[in-house]
Amino acid sequence: MSELKVVIHVNDPDRWKKALGNIRNLIKDVGEGKADIVALANGSAVTAFGNTELIEAMKTLAEQGVHFIACRNSLKNMCAEGVICLSENERPSFVVVTPAGITELVKRQHQGYAYVKP
Amino acid sequence: MSELKVVIHVNDPDRWKKALGNIRNLIKDVGEGKADIVALANGSAVTAFGNTELIEAMKTLAEQGVHFIACRNSLKNMCAEGVICLSENERPSFVVVTPAGITELVKRQHQGYAYVKP
Amino acid sequence: MSELKVVIHVNDPDRWKKALGNIRNLIKDVGEGKADIVALANGSAVTAFGNTELIEAMKTLAEQGVHFIACRNSLKNMCAEGVICLSENERPSFVVVTPAGITELVKRQHQGYAYVKP
Repeated sequence: MSELKVVIHVNDPDRWKKALGNIRNLIKDVGEGKADIVALANGSAVTAFGNTELIEAMKTLAEQGVHFIACRNSLKNMCAEGVICLSENERPSFVVVTPAGITELVKRQHQGYAYVKP
Repeated sequence: MSELKVVIHVNDPDRWKKALGNIRNLIKDVGEGKADIVALANGSAVTAFGNTELIEAMKTLAEQGVHFIACRNSLKNMCAEGVICLSENERPSFVVVTPAGITELVKRQHQGYAYVKP
Repeated sequence: MSELKVVIHVNDPDRWKKALGNIRNLIKDVGEGKADIVALANGSAVTAFGNTELIEAMKTLAEQGVHFIACRNSLKNMCAEGVICLSENERPSFVVVTPAGITELVKRQHQGYAYVKP
């Protein structure tokens, strides 16, 4: 079990760069596998799962054990609003979908995860 | 007692839409009365308690058990800066005022509330 | 030991004004020395440690016991990007440098600090 546990909350696509930088710095500082890192996206931040450049950067981190989670409500909203539709086939395979991102954020903290909003 | 406890921090009026959406999604996901939800406003976000449209949306949630708290320092600042003066008669009755929003945010987390900043 | 413990996260220079206001309100509300307050800066927010006006405001709070911490990765990045280079001699003496701000944010929360993002 990792000593350090954190959920990184991203709800704005412009914040992914900071968030991924934070995650890279955390892994570099404590060592691969030494922190349990969850990146939780809701709101328009889920559009990043359709952005080739960001997906490449995320994939490298996913291979180092970082968990990427997307809010289903947000995926539905982005599709309904005509922004982007990311069905299961169109999302990177490392992305896990949770019914409500907000519930995940609360539950993770109750499980001892720290919360950081980049 | 609710299993899930969360304080939603809003310090920017533009973030209320996201915050109220998050709260609605949380209630829809876990069920009414199953989460103890506090929406804490400080800074210019307290101006929302004078915005008819937002008040309507908040009232529906207050009736479902959501607690709305306003920072007294921020209410005073908004009045002193000539933005909006919301005396007790002018605020919705469901809004509770706390002396310092920042203290409330810290105390709630020490009481086991998760923290989310939409 | 203080009853209240909080780490205030600032990752955007524009948020320092809110952050310092929050800290002043917290001290005014609970009393000097009654809260353990850490202001953690990462990203471009570390540039504030080269801003005379902000340093003055921070110094007053540092004298009241507030701890100011800067992320070393961010200091290096700001210098490498040509924004501002703040070597040890150029930073205020009350600023402590931590190798990775993100790690500090996680560890502090694991030590019982509340998290607030102004």
